[in-house]
Amino acid sequence: MRILGIDPGLQTTGFGVVDVDGHRLSYVASGTIRTTSLALGDLPGRLRMLFDGITEVVARYEPDTSSVEIVFVNVNPQSTLLLGQARGACITALVASDLPVAEYTALQMKKAVVGHGRATKPQVQEMVRRLLSLPGLPGTDAADGLGMAITHAHAGAAMARMGEAGTLQRRQHAMYKGGRSY
Amino acid sequence: MRILGIDPGLQTTGFGVVDVDGHRLSYVASGTIRTTSLALGDLPGRLRMLFDGITEVVARYEPDTSSVEIVFVNVNPQSTLLLGQARGACITALVASDLPVAEYTALQMKKAVVGHGRATKPQVQEMVRRLLSLPGLPGTDAADGLGMAITHAHAGAAMARMGEAGTLQRRQHAMYKGGRSY
Repeated sequence: MRILGIDPGLQTTGFGVVDVDGHRLSYVASGTIRTTSLALGDLPGRLRMLFDGITEVVARYEPDTSSVEIVFVNVNPQSTLLLGQARGACITALVASDLPVAEYTALQMKKAVVGHGRATKPQVQEMVRRLLSLPGLPGTDAADGLGMAITHAHAGAAMARMGEAGTLQRRQHAMYKGGRSY
Repeated sequence: MRILGIDPGLQTTGFGVVDVDGHRLSYVASGTIRTTSLALGDLPGRLRMLFDGITEVVARYEPDTSSVEIVFVNVNPQSTLLLGQARGACITALVASDLPVAEYTALQMKKAVVGHGRATKPQVQEMVRRLLSLPGLPGTDAADGLGMAITHAHAGAAMARMGEAGTLQRRQHAMYKGGRSY
């Protein structure tokens, strides 16, 4: 199974593509989609760059499923609104490409990748490098994208152990996510 | 010029299509896109319904441009985040269909449609009915969508009077919007 992980942001969105074969993870690709070439106020233009960028990544690497970081409320409500719109554009690109979308928090990602939820960004980068046998550290946004893909791979393995394997349905991921609800 | 106006919401998104010929406005279509048939927590599914719904409206009525309500921060930050994601999906659908996107606040819409910013929803519905010579009142969400289209028509007329007519560029709308910035 090939998983596309996304760390959404209005200025920079990180992505990572990982192949999963049982317990084996292998790196396929990673990178960032930047919208900083556009004027700060050009929200429609930025959302289009995110949509087009993710659509292109999906077309090139043909993932089977996807995993997107659950963003949280910022101290600045206006930033929350902007981040929400960016995340909306990212998820829209995934569903418009007919991909299932799972959602995990940064805390769940850090637990899955590093082993505990208080991990720093450099620790996430280092563990992603080790888990995928990369020759160097991925950038922080790409590492978060790869981390999201790894988290989804672990969630699938955990559910398989629980005897719920076979088709990975969104409802099951919602169970795995525990207390998270909209 | 044919304008598609959008009042974005996660549960219900209103839309309205209006033709503008000089000072003459004529009604083309209006309605709502509802996502309430899906489970409350199925955010990707809801964003897809919004994207598919707007894409279908654009394909059917072939507007030349679009106008989307600027949403505001809610007292509940989680609601702000959800509304942001819904608005992101709506704008993404418009730009993915190659439509220019203008943005106006509800206050600007009420001023353009009713004449003052403290107008109630029934007043907006009644003025939209009169301006477009509708046989009956549109629903509140459809009225807001039509109101967004009317606001954009008025902004175009105002700019034409100011001698800035010709191509309606987004930068000019940003000027018209005054203090609004991201």
